Amino acid sequence: MLFAVRMGVDLPRDLDPGVREDLVAREKAYCQELQKSGRWPHIWRCAGQYANLSVFDVEDNEALHRVLWNLPLFPYLTIEITPLVQHPSDLAAGGAV
Amino acid sequence: MLFAVRMGVDLPRDLDPGVREDLVAREKAYCQELQKSGRWPHIWRCAGQYANLSVFDVEDNEALHRVLWNLPLFPYLTIEITPLVQHPSDLAAGGAV
Amino acid sequence: MLFAVRMGVDLPRDLDPGVREDLVAREKAYCQELQKSGRWPHIWRCAGQYANLSVFDVEDNEALHRVLWNLPLFPYLTIEITPLVQHPSDLAAGGAV
Amino acid sequence: MLFAVRMGVDLPRDLDPGVREDLVAREKAYCQELQKSGRWPHIWRCAGQYANLSVFDVEDNEALHRVLWNLPLFPYLTIEITPLVQHPSDLAAGGAV
Amino acid sequence: MLFAVRMGVDLPRDLDPGVREDLVAREKAYCQELQKSGRWPHIWRCAGQYANLSVFDVEDNEALHRVLWNLPLFPYLTIEITPLVQHPSDLAAGGAV
Amino acid sequence: MLFAVRMGVDLPRDLDPGVREDLVAREKAYCQELQKSGRWPHIWRCAGQYANLSVFDVEDNEALHRVLWNLPLFPYLTIEITPLVQHPSDLAAGGAV
Amino acid sequence: MLFAVRMGVDLPRDLDPGVREDLVAREKAYCQELQKSGRWPHIWRCAGQYANLSVFDVEDNEALHRVLWNLPLFPYLTIEITPLVQHPSDLAAGGAV
Amino acid sequence: MLFAVRMGVDLPRDLDPGVREDLVAREKAYCQELQKSGRWPHIWRCAGQYANLSVFDVEDNEALHRVLWNLPLFPYLTIEITPLVQHPSDLAAGGAV
Amino acid sequence: MLFAVRMGVDLPRDLDPGVREDLVAREKAYCQELQKSGRWPHIWRCAGQYANLSVFDVEDNEALHRVLWNLPLFPYLTIEITPLVQHPSDLAAGGAV
Amino acid sequence: MLFAVRMGVDLPRDLDPGVREDLVAREKAYCQELQKSGRWPHIWRCAGQYANLSVFDVEDNEALHRVLWNLPLFPYLTIEITPLVQHPSDLAAGGAV
Repeated sequence: MLFAVRMGVDLPRDLDPGVREDLVAREKAYCQELQKSGRWPHIWRCAGQYANLSVFDVEDNEALHRVLWNLPLFPYLTIEITPLVQHPSDLAAGGAV
Repeated sequence: MLFAVRMGVDLPRDLDPGVREDLVAREKAYCQELQKSGRWPHIWRCAGQYANLSVFDVEDNEALHRVLWNLPLFPYLTIEITPLVQHPSDLAAGGAV
Repeated sequence: MLFAVRMGVDLPRDLDPGVREDLVAREKAYCQELQKSGRWPHIWRCAGQYANLSVFDVEDNEALHRVLWNLPLFPYLTIEITPLVQHPSDLAAGGAV
Repeated sequence: MLFAVRMGVDLPRDLDPGVREDLVAREKAYCQELQKSGRWPHIWRCAGQYANLSVFDVEDNEALHRVLWNLPLFPYLTIEITPLVQHPSDLAAGGAV
Repeated sequence: MLFAVRMGVDLPRDLDPGVREDLVAREKAYCQELQKSGRWPHIWRCAGQYANLSVFDVEDNEALHRVLWNLPLFPYLTIEITPLVQHPSDLAAGGAV
Repeated sequence: MLFAVRMGVDLPRDLDPGVREDLVAREKAYCQELQKSGRWPHIWRCAGQYANLSVFDVEDNEALHRVLWNLPLFPYLTIEITPLVQHPSDLAAGGAV
Repeated sequence: MLFAVRMGVDLPRDLDPGVREDLVAREKAYCQELQKSGRWPHIWRCAGQYANLSVFDVEDNEALHRVLWNLPLFPYLTIEITPLVQHPSDLAAGGAV
Repeated sequence: MLFAVRMGVDLPRDLDPGVREDLVAREKAYCQELQKSGRWPHIWRCAGQYANLSVFDVEDNEALHRVLWNLPLFPYLTIEITPLVQHPSDLAAGGAV
Repeated sequence: MLFAVRMGVDLPRDLDPGVREDLVAREKAYCQELQKSGRWPHIWRCAGQYANLSVFDVEDNEALHRVLWNLPLFPYLTIEITPLVQHPSDLAAGGAV
Repeated sequence: MLFAVRMGVDLPRDLDPGVREDLVAREKAYCQELQKSGRWPHIWRCAGQYANLSVFDVEDNEALHRVLWNLPLFPYLTIEITPLVQHPSDLAAGGAV
């Protein structure tokens, strides 16, 4: 089950540099673990923004919530969620042209 | 070069049913042709909305514009564009964990 | 899996009264069928508005989309969707106080 | 009398951890007490957000205000209120199909 | 129980003048009947706008909804509702200064 | 001359408790003095919000400004003003039904 | 007593040209009559917009409402009102520098 | 050449009182100097707001920018600019009625 | 003197095709005449939108207004204006690096 | 490939003056280097705002992102991006009138 998620990041300026570096490293590791498991199939950086557009593939809303809630950067994120379904024009849907 | 594009569709109620059917069929054919050529790699329906979230892979802004401008449904679409780049945490970027 | 859905209704003034009556009757029948099946557990009218706040209980995003897309009033609705999960303070979650 | 209430939580980053833990614990206890009394029949977490959607069942506006004003987290909440009434399609309203 | 209600009126230009005159007359009669019964204690015109700010005094949300839903101009109104309670500084609340 | 005024209060969390208590007490005294003089005929708390909806009856814009500018809480208020006039349906306007 | 008023004009495309010409002519005459009487001391066109920014000098809110409500173009206007008072830095206020 | 400018002031609460007093005094002196030179022909306080609506009469955009950029309060201002031109209904434009 | 202007175009669907073609042709001719005269130095299409971003170089606000007001498509445009000045980092400003 | 970019600057008041001066100097040097390379062909100050409107000419989205991400002021900027293409009325496009 797919969800599009836009995450805007707003790290406070006065965050201790070590804390910041650690946060970002843990975020990256967490993200890549979810990519490997297939639950975070797409992540793109929005050009010119400290933000990403991602697609998640999870079993249900609960799984989506757990994934997002446990993001190391969660307290600094503004999150927008769009539930997705297969589009009738999607070739992957198997429809003949 | 990737762009995320959200398209909301607003077909007028008083559109002739034949015209409408033809429009939607041509939109589907056009969309699938672009999928086959690799320029429209993702299209998802936004759940509960007459809208889609798409990702386009085109050479440049001019190519993006031509693709969107020639959509049969173009006059009825509200379009939002987000230029995308590779995210530093994307495994596909080849970075070791 | 639960979703909160707000539906605002905007029926065109010039809709034929018979068509309108038929639409509203079919909407009601469709709604009550889904209530009986357990997929539309809550529907409230927003006071002073031609709008409702509903909760749907469906298997996945695809099921939610099918339910909404097939609403007889769908072409006249403005729909906002909020995916829901169990709240940690919810007694129904079984947590001791 | 029912009200839908959306509460967004914005705890300041520099809140003392002990204070924060205490606040959240008191909020949970307060919430569960109101659930038991029947005045807070529904509380859902909004997926991916530090926010909840709740339904309150109270005698009047004054009772709603007292309940919300006394939330331990009140100073950190953004609150939106929608007065609800029974929907004419609600089976619970006793109407035959 | 008090509610503040702002109503913006948007009568279609092509409304038949007789229909319009009748609508406005019935709205006025309906409004004055509710004033006499004490349920519509305040109505002010917003200066320079085809809009009013009103205060309703009703038993509950259901009563508020019935009053608004039955306004002859209801299909042409944009309605915003604010539930009100007594203010702690209100002298009418009986508090000594 | 009447004005509707909505005041949202945003007291900083780090305000000294004594300062805060003094501010709120002075606000209440100031408010009640204006009630007695007839210049602040209505004040309601917006349910579930640290906000009020008020009606002022003053000679002119200058008087309105002086009253608001001198509110002890002024620096912490977000203020919205709506000039009001008598509504043609208002029974108090003396019009026969 | 001064009010700043911004008026955006939205004349329907299908308005009969004669009706339109007459409306605009009556608007101009009405406007100039009020200028002569001193009640409409300033009117500026907003560059590149079918809109004006005006200042009215009237006795009270009732007078402002009458002036605006009777504008021949009133049904086609979007109106925003800002009550004004003398600024403490205004030389015209008589204050020595 | 005329511009309407709305300036909202947001002085930080923790500004040193002496600094604040000096800032406001310099703002007033600067404002009055520009009034005398004819470049700031109108300044009104927006009732109930720490804000003003002003009209500037300057040679060009560069002159407008210099005047605003050098306002002592500039770092604390939210500024909105509307370029103005003579209105065809303005009697001062010399048009016969 | 420079102004950035964004123009969104919204041609009504039911516009006579001949009228539409004529309008667009006249808009193009008008635009190119202004380009040749140096008053419309930049015009770009916003990708995927029926809209343009333009820069105008005119003597004053009056000249800007005349240029925009006389656009053949003016009645169908949504126009946003930003007055521009030379940027201190602009090499063209003659500043040594 | 062209992009319009609006950058609003919000430097924190408590930034060390030396740090601030250094940041602004590095921003200017960086900006002028990009101007010389042809990648930042236009930069204008928005009149009366701490903001600029710029046009970038870069190979692709990745190049745009690198340029913006490396702006010394990036952490203090609010950035809006509009992908641009050649306008069919642009004389530079070589079209005969």
